[in-house]
Amino acid sequence: MKIEAIDLFYVALPEITRTADGSQDSLVVRIRTDNGLEGWGECDASPLISMAAYVMPMSHSNVININEALIGETLDSPEDVIRLRNKAGEYGLDIQQLDHAVAGADIAMWDVLGKHLAEPVWKLIGHEASYRKLPYASVLFGDDPAETRKIADSIVGRDFRAAKFGWGPMGRGSLEDDIALVQAARDGLGFDAKLMVDAGVIWGDNVDAAYKRAVAFADLGVTWLEEPLRTEEVGAYKALSDRVRENGVKIGIAGGEGADFYRAADDMMTNAGLDFVQIDVGRIGGITESKRVADRAHELGIQYVNHTFKSHLSVASAIHVFAGYEEFDLTEYPVGESPLILGLTAPTGVFRDSNGLIAAPDTPGLGVEVNLDTLRQYQRQVKIEVDGEVLFESQEP
Amino acid sequence: MKIEAIDLFYVALPEITRTADGSQDSLVVRIRTDNGLEGWGECDASPLISMAAYVMPMSHSNVININEALIGETLDSPEDVIRLRNKAGEYGLDIQQLDHAVAGADIAMWDVLGKHLAEPVWKLIGHEASYRKLPYASVLFGDDPAETRKIADSIVGRDFRAAKFGWGPMGRGSLEDDIALVQAARDGLGFDAKLMVDAGVIWGDNVDAAYKRAVAFADLGVTWLEEPLRTEEVGAYKALSDRVRENGVKIGIAGGEGADFYRAADDMMTNAGLDFVQIDVGRIGGITESKRVADRAHELGIQYVNHTFKSHLSVASAIHVFAGYEEFDLTEYPVGESPLILGLTAPTGVFRDSNGLIAAPDTPGLGVEVNLDTLRQYQRQVKIEVDGEVLFESQEP
Repeated sequence: MKIEAIDLFYVALPEITRTADGSQDSLVVRIRTDNGLEGWGECDASPLISMAAYVMPMSHSNVININEALIGETLDSPEDVIRLRNKAGEYGLDIQQLDHAVAGADIAMWDVLGKHLAEPVWKLIGHEASYRKLPYASVLFGDDPAETRKIADSIVGRDFRAAKFGWGPMGRGSLEDDIALVQAARDGLGFDAKLMVDAGVIWGDNVDAAYKRAVAFADLGVTWLEEPLRTEEVGAYKALSDRVRENGVKIGIAGGEGADFYRAADDMMTNAGLDFVQIDVGRIGGITESKRVADRAHELGIQYVNHTFKSHLSVASAIHVFAGYEEFDLTEYPVGESPLILGLTAPTGVFRDSNGLIAAPDTPGLGVEVNLDTLRQYQRQVKIEVDGEVLFESQEP
Repeated sequence: MKIEAIDLFYVALPEITRTADGSQDSLVVRIRTDNGLEGWGECDASPLISMAAYVMPMSHSNVININEALIGETLDSPEDVIRLRNKAGEYGLDIQQLDHAVAGADIAMWDVLGKHLAEPVWKLIGHEASYRKLPYASVLFGDDPAETRKIADSIVGRDFRAAKFGWGPMGRGSLEDDIALVQAARDGLGFDAKLMVDAGVIWGDNVDAAYKRAVAFADLGVTWLEEPLRTEEVGAYKALSDRVRENGVKIGIAGGEGADFYRAADDMMTNAGLDFVQIDVGRIGGITESKRVADRAHELGIQYVNHTFKSHLSVASAIHVFAGYEEFDLTEYPVGESPLILGLTAPTGVFRDSNGLIAAPDTPGLGVEVNLDTLRQYQRQVKIEVDGEVLFESQEP
């Protein structure tokens, strides 16, 4: 089959708040083929900037847009998807936004190919099985310990056995403030639940500050301390993880969501001393590149975990990537209340089974479908013109 | 003073050809302050995508546009520029295009601050002197050895004592074809001229192919082999540079233009075994971040070289960055005929002295001025609307 069209949908809540909540908007990408099939993908990226990467005028042979690379191309096999993902990368060699933007198209190509070949994506990308994973509820800290406790209680009320709290006031007050936040989360979750902490790069390059939290949070049974430092501070990460290990502190160091391309993740895995590498399929350029990271993590003995804070289109994309690695047994699971994100794939989704676990679907493609009514309800109308020529204009889904 | 406005100008030749010639368009950024000053900067990036990064709607607290980060801010000292560059980075933590886009604003902030304080940029960023550098003419290979020879002859005719040939047919034929191209360049330049070869990432991860060229080109007195491998193949780079050194092959390995942010350059310097690190000030996020790389290269004993294929606005920005390091004595100097690029700063520019050397200007700011007539002549009219609201519309310079 051939790729006939790439449709872009910028969807957003009516009001966007200045919090670290990525579920307030989305760029949804649809690929249509000449045999009437459709595949869907989602970017975790600024929608408008990413849309420009699909339609902008050529600057030279290394700055050519994604539509030009993909539309009209043949798509019949996994090798075709990989070839086309690489082609888009070559056309956009000097486009920094390439990976964030092409992620949606890459995911949509895998989805539509799965529908075409009647296979789930996890099989197409080379896995032999789809193992179940323990989903952890991924939430933001409350503004104080009391509010954090309430959030933890609600997570227990929703039967989650694992949770990650992040951002909010973490690292913005004293060490004691930070401990009180994590203590509140632990108190709410109970002792048996897995608890992770996401520090949102708050300590920059300050290894001491991060180490003190690592020690304190380990005492509260925290599985990992995530992004204690800025992504680029790879040397500081290494110093921190070495110190944690040498002193027998029982906590993992996690990071990697800031990796926008394969080598950035490889750099973190090789040089930062990570125990957990967290990859966002909607940022690192899609399923193709995420799978490379998962394979490499497996080789290195580092646990691969998805980073996901968008809709179930992303939840599904993310879990297919590492479905076949039994040892990668945890998965980030967004539990926010954004009606946009909840509605985007409703009534389909990747839901917990009776044991509270989730697995990559066995149905063809990603195994979730996009709800066109939700797209219509939240769609933003975008129009981009250069010299009077309309390069992009939003269309009815 | 305060930043009052950021103006964006997308300029392009009427016809863009599919060659690796980055001098066909540009994004020029002007910063205006409340005391009537103006600073200018240039991005080496897709103009339309980068413009979107200045105006796109907020997605969440880590996806906020550059205008929001900078307009209204106080700019009175070098510390302010660094603070504002970091602020834009924090506002755009999850915007992949941030560095390519903010480069122009960062450069413009240094330029306007220099004018405000009546100091050249090289002094503001901490250099004690502005040493002269040997400019190498940076050109593309001809389609065959004969055409390459003609180009080399013309470079000699223009009194250059160093040249770099890149892209074109290099690596697309046999080893012998590649040698014939370089031989033609050498024949034209004569034995005394410095000759560099840019392979344009053509050998991917194939260390053997790159090594064979390194050996052959060393025999032709080539100073460095640039980007023989894809940027992300850091392990392959290391294998190549180790092999070159162990076998005493007299050629340097160069790379780094693909580094879109500080850590990517640091990764290449630390883990790829580079002899020369080549940084594009218009890609890596401006003068602030380039200077960090130059400082680090100095520490590591790696030679910093600019990568520049735009106007003299970029030539000037690039040379200020490493002006004070006497040992970094080579500078890439675009010599294309693009009237857009030649005209953008005419009649100002960074020109060769009677010894054929260039230096960062001693005049306030960058030391070059933008020609508004050229902007007008080549400006593309851009209009970006979301839900009927005009987020950007090109204006008269």
